[in-house]
Amino acid sequence: MKRMIAIMAASAALLTAGEGKWTPMQVVEIDAAWLKQQGLELPVSRLWDPSRGTGLLAGAVNIGGCSSGFVSATGLIATNHHCLFGQLQEHSRPGRDLITNGFLARTQAEELPSKTTRVTVPRRFTDVTKAVEAAVPAGADDLARFRAIEAKEKALVAECEKQAHARCRVAAFDGGVQYVLIETMELRDVRLVYAPPRAVGEYGGEIDNWMWPRHTGDFAMARAYVAPDGQPAAYSASNVPYKPEFFFPIAQKGVQEGDFVMVLGYPGTTVRSLTAAEMEGRRDDFFVRREALYGEWIRLLEETAKGDEAGTIAVAATLKSLLNRYKNAQGQLAGLKRGRIIEKVRAHEDTVVPWARQRKEWRESVAAKEALDRLAAEAKATAARDFLFSEIPSSAQALRHATQLVRLAAERAKPDAEREPAYMERLLPQLRDRMERDAKSWFAKADMALFASFLNHARALPAGQRIRAVDALHTPVEALYAATRVTDTAERLKMFDETEAQLRARRDPLLDFAFALETELRAWNQATKQRDGAIARLRPQWRRAVNAHAGKPVAPDANSTLRVSLAHVKGYSPRDGVVYTPRTSLAGMLEKHTGEDPFDVPSSVQMAAQKAADAAQIPLCFLADGDTTGGNSGSPMVNGRGELVGLNFDRVWENVANDFGYNPDIARNVSVDIRFLVWMLREVDRADNLLRELGQSR
Amino acid sequence: MKRMIAIMAASAALLTAGEGKWTPMQVVEIDAAWLKQQGLELPVSRLWDPSRGTGLLAGAVNIGGCSSGFVSATGLIATNHHCLFGQLQEHSRPGRDLITNGFLARTQAEELPSKTTRVTVPRRFTDVTKAVEAAVPAGADDLARFRAIEAKEKALVAECEKQAHARCRVAAFDGGVQYVLIETMELRDVRLVYAPPRAVGEYGGEIDNWMWPRHTGDFAMARAYVAPDGQPAAYSASNVPYKPEFFFPIAQKGVQEGDFVMVLGYPGTTVRSLTAAEMEGRRDDFFVRREALYGEWIRLLEETAKGDEAGTIAVAATLKSLLNRYKNAQGQLAGLKRGRIIEKVRAHEDTVVPWARQRKEWRESVAAKEALDRLAAEAKATAARDFLFSEIPSSAQALRHATQLVRLAAERAKPDAEREPAYMERLLPQLRDRMERDAKSWFAKADMALFASFLNHARALPAGQRIRAVDALHTPVEALYAATRVTDTAERLKMFDETEAQLRARRDPLLDFAFALETELRAWNQATKQRDGAIARLRPQWRRAVNAHAGKPVAPDANSTLRVSLAHVKGYSPRDGVVYTPRTSLAGMLEKHTGEDPFDVPSSVQMAAQKAADAAQIPLCFLADGDTTGGNSGSPMVNGRGELVGLNFDRVWENVANDFGYNPDIARNVSVDIRFLVWMLREVDRADNLLRELGQSR
Repeated sequence: MKRMIAIMAASAALLTAGEGKWTPMQVVEIDAAWLKQQGLELPVSRLWDPSRGTGLLAGAVNIGGCSSGFVSATGLIATNHHCLFGQLQEHSRPGRDLITNGFLARTQAEELPSKTTRVTVPRRFTDVTKAVEAAVPAGADDLARFRAIEAKEKALVAECEKQAHARCRVAAFDGGVQYVLIETMELRDVRLVYAPPRAVGEYGGEIDNWMWPRHTGDFAMARAYVAPDGQPAAYSASNVPYKPEFFFPIAQKGVQEGDFVMVLGYPGTTVRSLTAAEMEGRRDDFFVRREALYGEWIRLLEETAKGDEAGTIAVAATLKSLLNRYKNAQGQLAGLKRGRIIEKVRAHEDTVVPWARQRKEWRESVAAKEALDRLAAEAKATAARDFLFSEIPSSAQALRHATQLVRLAAERAKPDAEREPAYMERLLPQLRDRMERDAKSWFAKADMALFASFLNHARALPAGQRIRAVDALHTPVEALYAATRVTDTAERLKMFDETEAQLRARRDPLLDFAFALETELRAWNQATKQRDGAIARLRPQWRRAVNAHAGKPVAPDANSTLRVSLAHVKGYSPRDGVVYTPRTSLAGMLEKHTGEDPFDVPSSVQMAAQKAADAAQIPLCFLADGDTTGGNSGSPMVNGRGELVGLNFDRVWENVANDFGYNPDIARNVSVDIRFLVWMLREVDRADNLLRELGQSR
Repeated sequence: MKRMIAIMAASAALLTAGEGKWTPMQVVEIDAAWLKQQGLELPVSRLWDPSRGTGLLAGAVNIGGCSSGFVSATGLIATNHHCLFGQLQEHSRPGRDLITNGFLARTQAEELPSKTTRVTVPRRFTDVTKAVEAAVPAGADDLARFRAIEAKEKALVAECEKQAHARCRVAAFDGGVQYVLIETMELRDVRLVYAPPRAVGEYGGEIDNWMWPRHTGDFAMARAYVAPDGQPAAYSASNVPYKPEFFFPIAQKGVQEGDFVMVLGYPGTTVRSLTAAEMEGRRDDFFVRREALYGEWIRLLEETAKGDEAGTIAVAATLKSLLNRYKNAQGQLAGLKRGRIIEKVRAHEDTVVPWARQRKEWRESVAAKEALDRLAAEAKATAARDFLFSEIPSSAQALRHATQLVRLAAERAKPDAEREPAYMERLLPQLRDRMERDAKSWFAKADMALFASFLNHARALPAGQRIRAVDALHTPVEALYAATRVTDTAERLKMFDETEAQLRARRDPLLDFAFALETELRAWNQATKQRDGAIARLRPQWRRAVNAHAGKPVAPDANSTLRVSLAHVKGYSPRDGVVYTPRTSLAGMLEKHTGEDPFDVPSSVQMAAQKAADAAQIPLCFLADGDTTGGNSGSPMVNGRGELVGLNFDRVWENVANDFGYNPDIARNVSVDIRFLVWMLREVDRADNLLRELGQSR
């Protein structure tokens, strides 16, 4: 074993790829010889062509906030089971439980169209930093700065979206060190093709979530369709499969320990560019509070749904999401403590600050950093209330919908370009879809409990952070729910199109509460914008100094844009005396089988496993030292030849806090081996159609 | 990692030492070349001289049911912390808490004599199988057979103990395949020399118990004293340190992965020679019942002692013992299931039975095996009641003492040679000591709860297994405890010397209950003897056939006699994706530190660790594939040169059920590295006296 660890240490010194979620533009600038040494067998130009602003990396596409990849020339997309969970829920009904049983379309005709799933394919990335910065008038205060940037971003997006079927956004990198206009094409007809039974796709459930060793077949497939002319279109029976320019063929050879792999996808948010003081705020006023609040909400959902079959189904997706974020919060807190990450960031600041002070060109950056720290300190004054406001989108549907309807009515009265970005015309169809689809997750008892919890927490706020609308609310929750029509889906969708006057005329007590709350939410919003304006001014100053001090490329924080992480298949030691090997097998899945959820291997899988010569030879999951975060779910894991070897679906527990900083000893992402998908299709589902399409028929 | 596992697999093929708790006589017969190849550097004759019936192995001595080893020429003994826990309790009092703080005698004058600790040094082993078998009259029924064997054993022991200071026993191997007369010398003046703080000696507590990776400094030291003439004697200030013929010097070089090690000691009980049907009985009517009962008793002790400081101290040792056996029962059950051990034994029987049937000389053995299986089936009829009776020694002190006093009065009325062995004159001092020492563990509230639990379980017995004495008891437990004098230590020790008539005249309601119970206990005892007589007839027949079928030496089941296991330092894979490395370090102990019991590293250890260049270089525990069981606690782990490298103190969780069968993949015993003891003595305790004595001064 000792010898093994020595080998690992030696490898670690050689293979230092791990850290960094690189933008496509950065990948092109990495030394080609080094990339080859890491294991890249393709020319870098195949990965990305800066002149066209696209390349093989664009085979990785965004599917409803998750990552995914095209895997055939006819629009087949592979992603995680948990990324298509909503679609499975959408198509399930009593007597046809796709969640439990899984789904397989044996022909394209059997594929199930989704009302709401959208796929965005990246088309072009353009640096617009200068344009954005130029838009800020000289002498603008922080709120004006925020507004000027927002207005410029809107203008750039509007211009971009004049192109047919284009969806665009301006992404800020590290708070404004760089602004990039990203043009994507949105595919709106996405159909469910394949999902394993939940007992495979979620094997290990919440117990194994964020853990290693893992034995979860967390994969599912969909297909994108377009109009016969090849252009994106809403669902139509006459649509034809989309033909992607780039896709990842299944690797001929599976991954082995030490193999080079790339993680392609859309990592959501990391906070490594924050100062240590800001990180402390993130820890204490976000993760600590979230752990407590979600712990309570999980309990409420479980208790109210207990023994109620319909209720249990209805709250399943919400519960799953809360549990995931709850455990994430716990992992962030544990990892911050164990890895002493904030202490290390502070120590790093203590080397950058004196360095910058000695250099005229960076002197201001120190003042910027100190100003960021002051902003973090000031935020504590209203942290408890602000956290509660920020959790409204995750709380009771009634509260979320009512506040959204009220906000929508006000925003719609404005010219489109002046609205809050989330309420611009371009996004309203999605908002409406969500309000409709939420009916699937509606369970009155649970929703009332969440609403009551929100009120209780609001009532427990200290003086100086009180929410007046809550203080003024005397109607009991039950009465509120009995009287409101917001919770009626048809009625809610009517409200969606109503003006403020119409909504007020309804005298709906929940809407009235939302109107009262709106004043305070607006004020909070305003304060946030002002702070964000200040941060947009300060953070780039500070980060440019940090980057200059580093003297080498630094990958920016994740911001839901396309990234690639360069990694190797690799185990790790989670603690003294324990080594985690980087690959698991079907044998391990059977070993965990208890017959009880979440360790209940379906009999179809058991039977197929019995026929296998050696279940230990059927790969299931693997670890790599990829740099990932939430949003990377479903990321294609691609080898040095650009072939698909797996699908990323998780990080290990020790690595949850890598959102704050990368530690090569424990930074491991968890992928399901694509060979397990092929095995399932071949031995369990006999999905000859898909095997042929994936080049896996024999 | 894969490479590593390949190396491990290759080594496993080479190093097949692991299985077998060999008797000293068997070791001598093992092929010397093979032993050398395993790693033994001494001539076998150094380990054991059959002509003298002793050798280096006899440096391993029994200390109060635990194993231990002499480690200096002046009687110093190393064993486990948990083996000397009773002594620490004996010497602790308010203001002098040796359990929490540990203990170090800086001179021999400071060493603490114990009232009850005894060390037995093996002196000679003699095969008496023929004599015992010859003692059974032709045509004896099973009860007569039992009595004849018992009488012969008593006679052999009595003859042996005519030698000064000799303690003797006749040990049956595999139910009578062999009988060996074992002569030992009993040392009665044993003094406490060193124990680390409980936070080191029990680091990880019940959470880590039976687990790997481990970071427990489970060691302590005592010294044996004799009269100035070198003969064993009770404590006296004029006694001098005992000079053992054999002792184990501390190894100059520590253990590394792959090193050869021997586990020397006194393994208590294993059941590998049972038939599959008997094993099922052991599983269902012992471990399953014990898990349930001890789970309840643990809860009762914890609940009653909660918030009561004196109560908490009083029940500590009892609770520790119950928790240990409770987790052991769980491990046995889990291991039996996971390892399919009984299924494998049955499959093995299915190869031996037809083999034996075809051979005239073994044909009867099949009938014997079938008869054993029938006995196992018959035992089920009263299994619930019998289990409850068998747990009286672990239940309430009041119940245990009362039944012992009643039994003692009856037995003492008989000539010594006709008594139950446990009540013969030679053992009465120990019984009395125990009755006195139990006062340290007395906590009325807890004891009443255990007594009530016993009655409740008795009252829940099915018809046909009812206990009449319990059915006839109408006094509430509180009243019983209020009225009895058995629970008063001084009074109890008076009762110890009283006749049955005197005890009855006391009209003590608890004694009266014990008298009523005694009738049924006697009957149960009688039935057990009859069954044991049958087993003494049947098991040797069956086992001789099994051994002949094996065609190679088979180590007999553990029976608390001196054994040696030949092993190698080695990690293992507890499950898919996980490898346990075979060594842990001080760094891992610090890693587990939470500041809360049981993971609260004492500040003295923390400070010393801070001074160390690299805590990962200070070894703490290690794994080997030694074949051990309860009783092996404190076993010297000795290298191929006969030097001490560690002290065995546990098995790993996956290996608890190896009492039923050895599995080389997971059979691992846990030892504390002797270098950690030396580090503690040097860096934490500055115990120059002991370091000099151990040859470790520098």
